[in-house]
Parts: sequence; structure tokens; C-alpha cells
Amino acid sequence: MALLLTLNAGSSSLKFGVYRKADEPDLIIAGQVERLGPDARMVIDGEDDRPLGMTDHTRALDEILTTVWDHIGGEAITGVGHRIAHGGTDFLGPTVLTEAVLVKLRLLAPLAPLHQPHNLTCVDAAIATFPDAVQMGCFDTSFHRGHPWVNDTFALPRRFYREGVRRYGFHGLSYDYITGVLAERHPNLTKGRLVVAHLGNGASICAIKEGKSLASTMGFSALDGLPMGTRSGQLDPGVLLYLMDQRGMSAAELTTLLYRESGILGLSGLTSDMRTLEASDAPEAAQAIDYYVFRLQREIGAMAASLGGIDGLVFTGGIGENSRLIRARATEALGFMGIAIDEAANRENREEIGTGDTRVLVIPTDEERVIARALCATPQAVS
Amino acid sequence: MALLLTLNAGSSSLKFGVYRKADEPDLIIAGQVERLGPDARMVIDGEDDRPLGMTDHTRALDEILTTVWDHIGGEAITGVGHRIAHGGTDFLGPTVLTEAVLVKLRLLAPLAPLHQPHNLTCVDAAIATFPDAVQMGCFDTSFHRGHPWVNDTFALPRRFYREGVRRYGFHGLSYDYITGVLAERHPNLTKGRLVVAHLGNGASICAIKEGKSLASTMGFSALDGLPMGTRSGQLDPGVLLYLMDQRGMSAAELTTLLYRESGILGLSGLTSDMRTLEASDAPEAAQAIDYYVFRLQREIGAMAASLGGIDGLVFTGGIGENSRLIRARATEALGFMGIAIDEAANRENREEIGTGDTRVLVIPTDEERVIARALCATPQAVS
Repeated sequence: MALLLTLNAGSSSLKFGVYRKADEPDLIIAGQVERLGPDARMVIDGEDDRPLGMTDHTRALDEILTTVWDHIGGEAITGVGHRIAHGGTDFLGPTVLTEAVLVKLRLLAPLAPLHQPHNLTCVDAAIATFPDAVQMGCFDTSFHRGHPWVNDTFALPRRFYREGVRRYGFHGLSYDYITGVLAERHPNLTKGRLVVAHLGNGASICAIKEGKSLASTMGFSALDGLPMGTRSGQLDPGVLLYLMDQRGMSAAELTTLLYRESGILGLSGLTSDMRTLEASDAPEAAQAIDYYVFRLQREIGAMAASLGGIDGLVFTGGIGENSRLIRARATEALGFMGIAIDEAANRENREEIGTGDTRVLVIPTDEERVIARALCATPQAVS
Repeated sequence: MALLLTLNAGSSSLKFGVYRKADEPDLIIAGQVERLGPDARMVIDGEDDRPLGMTDHTRALDEILTTVWDHIGGEAITGVGHRIAHGGTDFLGPTVLTEAVLVKLRLLAPLAPLHQPHNLTCVDAAIATFPDAVQMGCFDTSFHRGHPWVNDTFALPRRFYREGVRRYGFHGLSYDYITGVLAERHPNLTKGRLVVAHLGNGASICAIKEGKSLASTMGFSALDGLPMGTRSGQLDPGVLLYLMDQRGMSAAELTTLLYRESGILGLSGLTSDMRTLEASDAPEAAQAIDYYVFRLQREIGAMAASLGGIDGLVFTGGIGENSRLIRARATEALGFMGIAIDEAANRENREEIGTGDTRVLVIPTDEERVIARALCATPQAVS
């Protein structure tokens, strides 16, 4: 039987999964190298926690491929599915990664500098390791490609839109998964107006109407919208002009500042990890959480207004799934939108935590499963 | 009796007013040079419309000072009040413009490049023309200086906040005026949660709680937030990084692009004037209006969420006071926030146009009057 491998390279982790083909893919082993950098660790099936020491994406991939080889024994990997951050305007769904496709995807790297190069490194390594397997790309942007023009453009001269300066939106695999769970478990909600907050190391909110993305807080790059672990989120463009003009900062310096030194790390001066912030007594930790909560509250309101109302609010991603503090605080002032949460249900991370007219749900996301399903639906990957 | 002069240099106009001192300043003559550029016109008391031909801020000021001299005959101007875009972190209210103060204000010019230099040019010219008058500055930022930290900072490393990279907010004189009108005519509203949309050639929305600014869509510069006549409004910082890195654009080129070629001018390719857009049959005009409406709707929601609800929505500024189309379209999907407007009242620009639980008001702003009041309250200006 055919085995399928998924690879999901994020900014600070590299996740993998091995699935056996089925109508619904059957997970055999999953894991990740997390906290890439000096304190990287390998986690398998949520348990085996092995320190790796200084590890970058390339070394993490080597470790993962070795682990997968050991685990599958003689069985063949016939398909490898990759999460790819940026599909530009061309890729509206899962796509077999031919050399022609890869050429296009490499050109998109400047639009997602923290992600796209790592995604493509994974593709190259997987081709070398599994030369007979079909390689497939699943794009974080595809879910949003139906955005109405008003939320696809910026207010720039129109040539910029034609040339690709658009509000792409990201975390599409996660929103795709959540939309699927809702269709299965809460079918009456899927016809309504949903605000889904994917709060992980990266974070965005998506406004979904009748199952389709209408708007997202992330736009052209993975920088915009909510503050993140190390990324700034929303920033007045005048700040960049000022830092260029008055401080002489280059594009490279600004990229490092905004992608790697900002967000809750920059505000707290302590950590990019929300769990560590929540456990800290430092006033700077509390302030960074205050800022995170304020922007989240503000943008939930913006997404609800974009939809003309809200029937359901969904929390997902590492922080969304696990932080009762962030969920409670971001929603406590949103009673005017019909949002109220039950303290006990929230504390226990239950699926349904709302008590008001607007449903409030906590749903763990599974981007790898979306990739595995796409592989199962591709005949070449399972022959 | 003492006469007082107000000067309000915007990005595309220069307004003035002459007042006689009174408990409430008594307007004698008001006017403006509007549409600065090749088609500039002098408008006095809303009527005398005289073409000036090519006119920049300096020539407009000459014309105005000549007009004022002619009009006041032998009476003395004892005080001149200036709208100043940026007061940084130091100026919390009207301030006599000593040389020491002017030195500080010149340093703030890079934070408001389209406004601050013109404001200070007006001060220099007024000192030369009325050397015995007191010169006073009224700052667009002062009204917002009480912002809570969560809406005063960006998610950057903390040193940037200490060094002045903050969400200053602008249009403070307008919000100050509106708050005063509400206190007089709708006192029960002033204790509530107000969203005030100042929609002129520049545009922002302010969230006001118990008379104080809690948040604004404009931040560090006058670029952020809503799209404007020629300014982009909200823009993914990744777009600037991309234009720098991939197109080699300089800070000066980006400044010109974002301040002068973007907004509804950039989107329509036709005009920066909403009246012209509304009268146009071009599809690009309709699209630019669609975008404007979408962002306005989105940000009204964001400001309401920032306040934890909304008791009143106020439209002001040239577009807010006069465009029934923009008011109707920006609110039509906001019924879930208790917002509904009466078609006839809206068509007639009546003060009260709401029919839902949330009050909806149209109130003409008067920034010059706020300046004149500040002058009346300054003993040196009226001695």
C-alpha cells in the first residue's frame, strides 16, 4: 500500500506526517522539529521529546527524513505533500510540483521571505530522497483567492494590483481544515458569517461567508494584521518611511526588524512564546499580552463588520486552542456582538465555549491532514 | 477691540478665519484657498470664488494675508492661531509658539511631511506680517495624547516607542470640536462610546469614550488607516519591503507614491475628489468608491470593538458632511451594531439620520473655531 508524507515548514518549526492512503487518510506517525534554533527539539506523536541542539530547517529536514525512513521500513513513499506559503495569483488549489511550477514558486519567495525559501528547500530535499514519489504543493493563499476586489487590492495606483501587489491572505490550509470540521459538525453554521482566528506563532483572522474567504487580516505578506511571535503585524507605512529616511535603515535591516525582532518578542523584550509570557511576572510580559489582546479584539470587530455581522467565532492554532487567557480577554468586551463565553468551558478548552447569540468554538487545526487529503485525491500519488 | 486670525494649512488647501474676541469667538470673515495647484481658487465666506491660477502654500498665504489686511482696515491682529499637524509627545494643548517651541516642531516635520512644513511656513509668514501678535499652535495630535499604551505603541522593540515611534493620531482639532458640539446638544451621548469619522481629503476615525480619545485609525503619520484623496491608508508593511527590495524604490519615491499618487486617486486613475468620483460613470470610479466604503465599514467595526460597543456614530469632514452615498453605503451592513439610517434624513444631510439603537449624526466640523477659542483663552492674544 502507498504511504504518503506531508511536510509543513513554518517560520520556527518543521512538521511532518506519514499517512496511509484511505478515503480519509490514516495517520501512521506525526511529529515536528520545534523551536528551530539553539534549543530545537524533535517531538514524535506528541511525546518523544529529544533535544537536537542548534538546528536550522535543513538539518531538521535531515532528522525528519531519517526518522521517516527508519519508521516505514521497506514501504514506499509514493507521494509527498508540501505546505507552500505563497501560490501567488496562479495556484488556486493543490498542484503537482513540476519544474515549471517550481520556477514560478521561486519567483514568489520575496513575497514570503520567512517561509517560501524553506518550503522550497523541503521540496528539493524530498525530490532527492523520494525521486519516484509525486511531489505536490498545497498553498496557504489558495483559500483566499476568491476575495472580492475591495479586499484584494490596496489603495495604490492600479498598475500595482496588475503586477501582483494584492492582499493574498495566508493560513489557508488551516481555514480550509476548520471549514471542513464545521461542515461536518456544525453544518448550520457554515452557511453563516464566521470569524476564524488562527493564532499560532504566525497569526491571522479570516472572515468566512458561506464557506468562502471574504477577507483576512493578513495581506500581501505574512507580516500584516495581528501581532505575532516575532512579527509586527499592522504597522503605519509612515513608520517604514521614517526609519528609511531618518535612520537610514535598509530593506534588509527592516526585514529583520519586522519579521524577527518585533511582535510579542519585541514588546516584551523577553520571548516570542505566549506560554512563557503568560507565566511571567514581568510588567513587560503583561503589556505585551495587553497589546496582543487589544489588537485581537479590534480585528475581530473589523472582520465582523466586513461580514456585516457574525454568527460564529472560532479559535484555532497553538494559542487559540490552548490559551484560555487570550480567548477570555479578547472576547470580554465583545458582548455587543453577541459574544460571551462560559468560564468553565473555556478553562477546559471545550469545543463549544460560547453562551451568547454568537457561537464561540475552539477547534484544533490540522494543516497536514488537508495536505494528506489532497494527496489522496491525486491519482499519481497513490498508484 | 482685538482681532484674531486663524490659519489652517492642509495638504490641498489653506483656510483662514478672522474673529473678534468674545466669550464665544465672533467670526468676521472666513475663507480658503482650495485645490492648491494649477486650479487653485480663493473662496471667501463660501461665496466669492476667484481663480488664482498656479498656487502653492506660500502664494496662497500671501493672497490670504492681503485679503485680511484689506478687510480689517486699521484694526490690529493681536493673536494668530495655527493648526499644527504634529505636536509629538510634548504638546498636550494649545501652546504659544516661542522660538524654543518652533525648534521642537521643526524636528517633527519628518513625521508629517505633507503638513508640518506648510504649518511652519504659515507661522514664519505670520510672525513677519504681524510681529506684535502672539502666535499660538493648536496640535492635531493633542486630543489623542491620552491613548492607552496598547493603542499608542506598535509591536516593535520597545526602544522605538521610547524614541517616539507611536500612534499619535491626527484630526484632533476636529474631534475636539465635535466632542464640544455633542456636549452641548447631545449631553447624554458624551458619556457613551462614540465612533467619529472625519472624512475629508485626509480621513480618520476616532474611538471616543467619555469624551476622550481611546483609539484612532491614524497612527504615527497621516498615512495610516482609511484610504484618502491621494494617500494609501492602511498598507501591509511587506509591500514597502517588496518595493524597496525588488523595485529599488527609495524613501523619497515611496513617500511620493503613498502620499500623493495613491488613495482614491490611485485606485480610480481619475481624481482625488469624491464628488467627481460619485458623478463619474467610469467603472474605475465605482471601484474606488467600493474600496473606500469597504475600508470605512471595516474600520467602524474595529473602532466599535475597541470601545466594547457603540452608542453613537458621527460623520464629519467634507465627505462625511455631504456625501449621502458614502454614509448610506458604509452603514448598510452594520445593522448588527444597531446602526440604521433614515433615507430621507440622510438625503437632506440632517443632523440626526439614525433610526436604530445606535445614534447616527452628521455634524459639520469647524477646526478654525477650536483655534479661535484657544486664542480667546490666552490672555496675551487679546490684551
